[in-house]
Amino acid sequence: MTKYCITINDVNYPVKIIKNLYHKINIFKQLISTKQIIIITNKTIKTFYLKTIKNIFKNTVIKIDSIIIPDGEKYKNLSIINNIITKLLKKKYTKNITLLALGGGVIGDITGFVASIYKRGVQFIQVPTTLLSQVDSSIGGKVGVNHILGKNMIGTFYKPTSVIINLDFLKTLPKRELYSGFAEVIKYSIILDKAFFNWLENNINLLLQLNKEAIEYCVYKCCKLKLKIVSIDEKEKKSLRTLLNFGHTFGHAIETYMCYGTWLHGEAISVGIAIATKISELKKQITSKEANRIITLLKQAHLPIKGPFEMKPNHYITYMINDKKNINNKINLILPISIGKSIIYQNIDIKTITLAISYLK
Amino acid sequence: MTKYCITINDVNYPVKIIKNLYHKINIFKQLISTKQIIIITNKTIKTFYLKTIKNIFKNTVIKIDSIIIPDGEKYKNLSIINNIITKLLKKKYTKNITLLALGGGVIGDITGFVASIYKRGVQFIQVPTTLLSQVDSSIGGKVGVNHILGKNMIGTFYKPTSVIINLDFLKTLPKRELYSGFAEVIKYSIILDKAFFNWLENNINLLLQLNKEAIEYCVYKCCKLKLKIVSIDEKEKKSLRTLLNFGHTFGHAIETYMCYGTWLHGEAISVGIAIATKISELKKQITSKEANRIITLLKQAHLPIKGPFEMKPNHYITYMINDKKNINNKINLILPISIGKSIIYQNIDIKTITLAISYLK
Repeated sequence: MTKYCITINDVNYPVKIIKNLYHKINIFKQLISTKQIIIITNKTIKTFYLKTIKNIFKNTVIKIDSIIIPDGEKYKNLSIINNIITKLLKKKYTKNITLLALGGGVIGDITGFVASIYKRGVQFIQVPTTLLSQVDSSIGGKVGVNHILGKNMIGTFYKPTSVIINLDFLKTLPKRELYSGFAEVIKYSIILDKAFFNWLENNINLLLQLNKEAIEYCVYKCCKLKLKIVSIDEKEKKSLRTLLNFGHTFGHAIETYMCYGTWLHGEAISVGIAIATKISELKKQITSKEANRIITLLKQAHLPIKGPFEMKPNHYITYMINDKKNINNKINLILPISIGKSIIYQNIDIKTITLAISYLK
Repeated sequence: MTKYCITINDVNYPVKIIKNLYHKINIFKQLISTKQIIIITNKTIKTFYLKTIKNIFKNTVIKIDSIIIPDGEKYKNLSIINNIITKLLKKKYTKNITLLALGGGVIGDITGFVASIYKRGVQFIQVPTTLLSQVDSSIGGKVGVNHILGKNMIGTFYKPTSVIINLDFLKTLPKRELYSGFAEVIKYSIILDKAFFNWLENNINLLLQLNKEAIEYCVYKCCKLKLKIVSIDEKEKKSLRTLLNFGHTFGHAIETYMCYGTWLHGEAISVGIAIATKISELKKQITSKEANRIITLLKQAHLPIKGPFEMKPNHYITYMINDKKNINNKINLILPISIGKSIIYQNIDIKTITLAISYLK
């Protein structure tokens, strides 16, 4: 039995990176102050982990219930929120409960949003099972759902009580989802940390093979980077947290256009990173050499750099106008100006966007 | 033109009590920092006030749009929230907007909830038009909607940018709605302020006639009482704010059982106050003399003290078990122990509740 457990206390809730979750009952005991937990998960994860998680709480005073929802981004909408709330109300759960999000980004976003609005707020714990949710979406308190007119258009800022990242979950993760997670990993390095980018270039193959030490360092590093940003700019009121949206303007356009779920979030973000990098190159903000290094690393992580065949430049533009980062109908974009450094480029012209997308068709 | 304007700054947003709204363009100019306002109101209020409110902003740089929703508590649900968000997204509104709630408690709760979840939060201003919303629901940041299984079961704590209370609106308020507002007024005095209760006993007739000085003092006094509580216990984590729910446990049961809107909120609360007072008398917490004074004042305000004929005691109990104030399935109730003083009575027995309801049938 390993005793591996790193706790990061950079924000006002603990983020714990562990291995071998099933021997960590004490971690849960310390973190949960209610006697009733409701696990929210999907059908796929249920098969792998639900029973074992429930077993952790056997012989304790904590009661466990679970709500199983369909698997996939296309179910991340207000309708599923209403269904979950109906189930909670039917069982007459008071405010004195903890919702436990067991799953990837979709489960985390849905569970957190329900927690933020059920009886005006109950506790919730993130137990992310995918690389993408472990390095990104489970941390930072952004929760919510999609609308047919745009991704994450409905939501709140709501802090989890704690985040428990069990690295062992990654062993059962489908390869495509693993690769998808690396899009966010690479994103952090481009916008914030050149040394980390260099390290990723040297270790990408070890990471893809889930080498223990490499993955541990990678997840820890990403959590540290994100928590640092969130601790300074929780509600995205300064421009700092906005930088984390690098690649997301185009990524969200792809996800929305393709009806959520056809493209994985990380795949869409990878294309978004490639387009934004190309725009930066066209605008002479970043050198062609560094732009090429970014594209190469994405490819090495088996990530796409071209958007869906059926999406024309104007399809992207339509969605971009509705982006949350825009103020007064001007399109703002996050662009890398060198590896490890990025800016918010104000009021970008549609011609350059079109050109960059065409380059990558 | 009157210059009447009292500003209360007890919390971190201003509450302004004014008369003659249409000459107060400067108030709006000071309070609104966005160039786009979307007024959310209902069909009834639209007829009276929408055009005039829009005129206030004529010849300014502020753009005005409006969304009209159906009138009534029965439309306060997630479905209307989704409809409003769809309208905002279709018009491509960014985060840089202010929603203006023009209406009673239902409009305020709906608008505030949309503001709290649209693109993770936009600004909103409360412009309450009923007595009930002016003295209670527009202040304190509780927003949300009903669920078929319980009132206000879905919501958030979300602060308005400001609250603008125009006393002139009360002139067009239907009498039944005016009386309904006095239920919350009387509630404040019973739980918090004996001198105010005495004043209400002496001035109830002037108030019902909308005597200018009496109404001014009454609204000001209620706002001060509520803001004091909210400033100490915003999120109802101490027991203080919970006291404001006096009468609401039974009141919400009536509203839910009667399918929202048949009974006005204040009417249901009045019955709730009567039942809770009777329970307190049975439990020998309050004297029969003071209990009678409470019942008498409710009656003088033309408020009901008996619940719907078709509701039996067990109908109340079913809803009460799901109340937000309950912890671990015990029914807790706010009871007055004398006029001006109240407590949270823990784990009350169902027999006494049944007896009190039967007394008032």
